[in-house]
Amino acid sequence: MPSNNCYDVTTWPVGNPAKDVGEVINSIIADVKERQAATDVNDGGKPGAVIYIPPGDYHLRTQVVIDVSFLRIEGSGHGFTSSSIRHNVPEDEWPDLHELWPGGSRIIVDLPPAENGEEAKGAAFYIERSGSPRISSVEFSNFCIDGLHFVPDGSGLKAENTYVNGKTGIYAATANDSFRVTGMGFVYLENALTIYNADALSIHDNFIAECGSCIELRGWGQASKITDNLVGAGPKGHSIYAENHGGLLITANNVFPRGASSVHLNGVTRSSVTNNRLHSFYPGMVVLAESSENLVATNHFLRDHEPWTPFVGVDNGLDDLNGLLRVGGSNNTVVNNHFSEVIDSESIRPAGATPVIIRLTAGVGNFVSNNHVVAKDVHSTSSDSCFEAQVDALLTTEESEGFAVTAVMVDPASSRNTILDSGSDAQVIADRAVNAFRATPSIGF
Amino acid sequence: MPSNNCYDVTTWPVGNPAKDVGEVINSIIADVKERQAATDVNDGGKPGAVIYIPPGDYHLRTQVVIDVSFLRIEGSGHGFTSSSIRHNVPEDEWPDLHELWPGGSRIIVDLPPAENGEEAKGAAFYIERSGSPRISSVEFSNFCIDGLHFVPDGSGLKAENTYVNGKTGIYAATANDSFRVTGMGFVYLENALTIYNADALSIHDNFIAECGSCIELRGWGQASKITDNLVGAGPKGHSIYAENHGGLLITANNVFPRGASSVHLNGVTRSSVTNNRLHSFYPGMVVLAESSENLVATNHFLRDHEPWTPFVGVDNGLDDLNGLLRVGGSNNTVVNNHFSEVIDSESIRPAGATPVIIRLTAGVGNFVSNNHVVAKDVHSTSSDSCFEAQVDALLTTEESEGFAVTAVMVDPASSRNTILDSGSDAQVIADRAVNAFRATPSIGF
Amino acid sequence: MPSNNCYDVTTWPVGNPAKDVGEVINSIIADVKERQAATDVNDGGKPGAVIYIPPGDYHLRTQVVIDVSFLRIEGSGHGFTSSSIRHNVPEDEWPDLHELWPGGSRIIVDLPPAENGEEAKGAAFYIERSGSPRISSVEFSNFCIDGLHFVPDGSGLKAENTYVNGKTGIYAATANDSFRVTGMGFVYLENALTIYNADALSIHDNFIAECGSCIELRGWGQASKITDNLVGAGPKGHSIYAENHGGLLITANNVFPRGASSVHLNGVTRSSVTNNRLHSFYPGMVVLAESSENLVATNHFLRDHEPWTPFVGVDNGLDDLNGLLRVGGSNNTVVNNHFSEVIDSESIRPAGATPVIIRLTAGVGNFVSNNHVVAKDVHSTSSDSCFEAQVDALLTTEESEGFAVTAVMVDPASSRNTILDSGSDAQVIADRAVNAFRATPSIGF
Repeated sequence: MPSNNCYDVTTWPVGNPAKDVGEVINSIIADVKERQAATDVNDGGKPGAVIYIPPGDYHLRTQVVIDVSFLRIEGSGHGFTSSSIRHNVPEDEWPDLHELWPGGSRIIVDLPPAENGEEAKGAAFYIERSGSPRISSVEFSNFCIDGLHFVPDGSGLKAENTYVNGKTGIYAATANDSFRVTGMGFVYLENALTIYNADALSIHDNFIAECGSCIELRGWGQASKITDNLVGAGPKGHSIYAENHGGLLITANNVFPRGASSVHLNGVTRSSVTNNRLHSFYPGMVVLAESSENLVATNHFLRDHEPWTPFVGVDNGLDDLNGLLRVGGSNNTVVNNHFSEVIDSESIRPAGATPVIIRLTAGVGNFVSNNHVVAKDVHSTSSDSCFEAQVDALLTTEESEGFAVTAVMVDPASSRNTILDSGSDAQVIADRAVNAFRATPSIGF
Repeated sequence: MPSNNCYDVTTWPVGNPAKDVGEVINSIIADVKERQAATDVNDGGKPGAVIYIPPGDYHLRTQVVIDVSFLRIEGSGHGFTSSSIRHNVPEDEWPDLHELWPGGSRIIVDLPPAENGEEAKGAAFYIERSGSPRISSVEFSNFCIDGLHFVPDGSGLKAENTYVNGKTGIYAATANDSFRVTGMGFVYLENALTIYNADALSIHDNFIAECGSCIELRGWGQASKITDNLVGAGPKGHSIYAENHGGLLITANNVFPRGASSVHLNGVTRSSVTNNRLHSFYPGMVVLAESSENLVATNHFLRDHEPWTPFVGVDNGLDDLNGLLRVGGSNNTVVNNHFSEVIDSESIRPAGATPVIIRLTAGVGNFVSNNHVVAKDVHSTSSDSCFEAQVDALLTTEESEGFAVTAVMVDPASSRNTILDSGSDAQVIADRAVNAFRATPSIGF
Repeated sequence: MPSNNCYDVTTWPVGNPAKDVGEVINSIIADVKERQAATDVNDGGKPGAVIYIPPGDYHLRTQVVIDVSFLRIEGSGHGFTSSSIRHNVPEDEWPDLHELWPGGSRIIVDLPPAENGEEAKGAAFYIERSGSPRISSVEFSNFCIDGLHFVPDGSGLKAENTYVNGKTGIYAATANDSFRVTGMGFVYLENALTIYNADALSIHDNFIAECGSCIELRGWGQASKITDNLVGAGPKGHSIYAENHGGLLITANNVFPRGASSVHLNGVTRSSVTNNRLHSFYPGMVVLAESSENLVATNHFLRDHEPWTPFVGVDNGLDDLNGLLRVGGSNNTVVNNHFSEVIDSESIRPAGATPVIIRLTAGVGNFVSNNHVVAKDVHSTSSDSCFEAQVDALLTTEESEGFAVTAVMVDPASSRNTILDSGSDAQVIADRAVNAFRATPSIGF
């Protein structure tokens, strides 16, 4: 029993961490609670603990349940490698591969898949505490949570490409304060991080990829930050999602495909989506649904085509009239974003349509200014090699005539917006009688 | 005596870390200095050390004095929990609380309160070294410094709500280079971080809240960064303050109430305040006093009302003509900020005044462009429940007619500024004979 | 042999880490490979390892060769101190110095200098692996790599001021995925970080200074981030360089002098340079060469004079017509940057020329909007004291009449650009017949 509150899953006497690290960690948490049962009202008595996970493979067959504050679980390696690429390598080539699996301090989630409506049961780390105060300062740092396999979803996709397995990495069910998730790796989980009712949460410098959904802030919450992460979800999921949050700062993230959205906000107010690099294969990259007074600034949006053969033909179901950025709400500020739409004009849907870049669907008083749209018509190709195909596509900027786009479309349900220097007169569809407009000057102006 | 320069406060033979961790750490530093007294001019000999603070409660009754470079002090948990909420819970409910105090690797500052003018004596960690070179690479990482209680200040506020106790977390008195403060928690200190004469300082990813002042860079300095922190000071203090600094980068911070200011710069030049989320209950959120050639861009400003009953009626004494952003200096760039002013118009001071958002008080040549102001008139309410009240307030965006604001006011002492697309003609008060102006286009323009 | 995959260089039985930590680490890597030779196709078997470097001085006389994934090398101190200042202190003052060398967990690179064309041989850490998959999740954290001395380069500069020694800190020669470099210190290396063919690389929160070149991303790559670093290269090198990269996010860096460039992009597409603080003593601060569809936004550019006597007269050879920001490519977005040009007008080259701030040299369709240029004429001075001289220069904003600048110059080879609110009519040199232009409004407009 460590007198200094430092635990190591490989030396704890209860359980076998290789076979079920969940049992081990739960036993450690029970020990922390037993040893810190008394509270000294003069100054303290429940400082919590750190649980160390050395590099290694640890199956988790029992869900870890966290109901103590000040618990830090840390490893020595985020351990990401692309399982998606590997699962699409023919089996007879596996003996030639250097390694088949992620690594680092690696939790292998071996829970039974959660049934519909029982999502929380599929979580490797489950956090719940009622009463007061809210659970505080739980920290996850520098280890890997690996869901191992996806399963068939009836879509006809190969099982390992479905992004479905009913597994979640970390699930916080009740109100929480000052949590931290830093330096982690998440891979092959249907949901990486699902956090309800967060206050002053920090999700910083993680690697969250090849998961159905990556970061979901649910319920309601405030004053949190999602910063400096590498993130990329699956075609049915969210890379970054928040609902009913205020004062959320989403900045400096590099969000890669293939999430159904890059950033999806629902009922979010007075928050910032700034300074991110966002890349998607579909429309609907950033969605502000019933979300008001937010700042969307200096983001780089790139929408191009899926270049990797196993996913060609997969998409999020949205056509090109949806917009890359979709604003349904009031008084938002949308400024100084760069949009590159690099697509095969033959593939535009509905056929013959003029793709929309920014679309205001509802609300009033949005300020849309100094956004720059680049549209390039490319011949869509794909390759069996994921990395090379992606880099090739990214670097392709051969001159082309481009194609016409609607830089900004304002639906009749939205009005009293101001649209400045974000497109020519022809590129902005908005009722000038109810929206203020200044066209980007053209040559000879 | 560790031959590998790794120390643990719980295993060091001198002192009792639970009773006085200050004595223990000073003894360790003395050991480092004795063991590393000789310098090998060929290549080295004074590499410094790491001092580990495991999770636990450690009273500090002797100030730690640091005068060696290359010292890292690290813990395993930032340990923040809201002491402010707990101290406002009736005492008869305490037995129902899960925990009463912060935790993690927690230093409890038990120094006698500093008298006026002897502020440095109240610092848990005091850094001073004269001579050359400047002290370098002192690092603080991932532990908690807790001031435990505030004391009566004669204001009539309950003692625990005064933000006064004469205690400081970390105080650097002399010129320093390449310091790092990362992953720390600070709570219930009158001053969290006070750093004089910093060069290439990094204050990154900390949790600094419920402190009188949070980050103060004093004296002079250059080329530092304050990035990706969660910060919130008390009504008389600064969340982020710097004086006579050049090349300071303040970005990606989430600054919450209730500091007298969110960011206060005094004599600061060629620095950046970009991409922060700033929330305050008072005017005077960002102040550039005698500060020139700075960039204030893509920040989200929210000013609303104190929603938590214990602090209703407390403010920073500034009326609504002060502006949320106040610029006294020359050649600053103020662009693409979002401002939400969400207040009860009945509470505007002076009564009947038109609140000012951006105010230029002195200087020349400021460039104010493409800022977006949203004003909403709400009925001010408060609640005994801090978190719920704050979230409720944040999420409230019910439609209202709003009220008139002065988006930009240029005082006669300021001239030759350029103000573009930051308000209508009526919303900008500036002498057009000495300032360049272009109104935000209005509908039908 | 550690069963838990945690190694410590000071306790490993092979080699002497003080004399040759390279031999020790290579022996550890061999042990990892031997112990993890088998792959269990069911779930894993090659999780990698962590190698700990306690604070101390470790000579590296054998290059470390890394060809395993999931290897984390970590120390307990980035250990930077200014070797540049110390090497310019007269030798008879050395006995008065507190310390002469960097510290922390310090690797002293004692490899023989690499010959021309054999640059990789001079690397302390060399990473190479062919075959599939690409090597993944190699992490470097919180230690110091020190090149110790520079050598004469024939320029007449004092040897220790040449930034030349044929040494590299970390060199990745082959395609790699999800690498991390965090919290490191690099000093007195000709090249700090040279990474070929990176995917989802994170270079975050490092201190990289007094190196010839700091960060070079070579070959090609995608979806990486260079964030929140303190960086400053030598007059012949790059602070941040990338070639043939797509989706690179360069943000929140504080880049100080004296690199030949602050950020140099060559064949880079759809990437972001946002929100950085950039300081240089020469023109050519940010270069986009054959680079398209990038976003350069809300950066603070400061160009002033070398204030430190040992380097007065050293520069990068570019005259003032080159521009501080140079764009050779198409469809880039250059918005809301602040430029301070604070120079002695007597020193402008060619004599009598009007300095250029933003120069578009080739390409089409660039969008240049709402940039703010400040030019101040100062009397150039220098001092023997590096820190004080730099701070003095930074804080100097005495009123002066300024001097004329060309805010934007569009070469004939570049056309169809849009230039808005980035300078007066006289300050923008661009053929209005082939570029769209709107002057910043002037007083009385």
